[in-house]
Amino acid sequence: MSLQQDVELMRNIPLFAKIEPSKLKLLAFTAERLTFGQGDLVCKQGDEGDSAYIIIDGEADVIVDTANGEVTVATLKKNDFLGETAILCDVPRTATVKAKSDLETLMISKDLFFQLVGQFPSMSIEIMRELARRVERTTVQLREAVSQQA
Amino acid sequence: MSLQQDVELMRNIPLFAKIEPSKLKLLAFTAERLTFGQGDLVCKQGDEGDSAYIIIDGEADVIVDTANGEVTVATLKKNDFLGETAILCDVPRTATVKAKSDLETLMISKDLFFQLVGQFPSMSIEIMRELARRVERTTVQLREAVSQQA
Repeated sequence: MSLQQDVELMRNIPLFAKIEPSKLKLLAFTAERLTFGQGDLVCKQGDEGDSAYIIIDGEADVIVDTANGEVTVATLKKNDFLGETAILCDVPRTATVKAKSDLETLMISKDLFFQLVGQFPSMSIEIMRELARRVERTTVQLREAVSQQA
Repeated sequence: MSLQQDVELMRNIPLFAKIEPSKLKLLAFTAERLTFGQGDLVCKQGDEGDSAYIIIDGEADVIVDTANGEVTVATLKKNDFLGETAILCDVPRTATVKAKSDLETLMISKDLFFQLVGQFPSMSIEIMRELARRVERTTVQLREAVSQQA
């Protein structure tokens, strides 16, 4: 795929929507495209991790180990990001992410991630917004789980 | 309290630690200090909200309504922030926050919040980091609740 096509692709990712095209070129040079087959693991709970991923195409399940086996806590789709917790918090992967279909991703290294959020406040705001939504969604699931216990 | 004292106070809040003192003066002018007595509500689940808060002193419980009544899902303490979800996601307050002790806060309006994260990437990173931790913490609680169901 040409650089121009890569830039076009990135312009359509909401996380990068407000970044000028000239700066997207640098991102297109630096970020790596990685594809996974259905059933492949993007990352594994407990492993070290120094990259985040943006889904360009396909779906992936977020799976956590529990005392009762694996539980799928979310399904990620096009334009969703994943893997940010390990690089933000310097902790091992907090969940396993498995390709639910063939999956195309953009891999963002830890260094690039911090460069991007340092340069592009609009990207930081989108990430904060999505993280706040995830806190809320998980809190709702927790509320329901607690309600069912009583 | 003098402006200089306010700036000193803000320098000791980790969220603002990397912001230059000259810029903290502007923040000290713009942010409002609000105190609450024990048992007072800082915000109420379901209400509209257009401010976030940083706790300067004291503790506050984060409470959500469930089918079985109120559940305290977290306790916030000095330097923690709250209320960011309503302003990031344009949704009503997702939880009630009640002062567990006398509580001193710095109130940050929605406008000021977006100004700050636009200007200070270090602040954005700290907020993302804390939100990622909250996703993780809530996921662990959810995992435990699901395990107890079986």
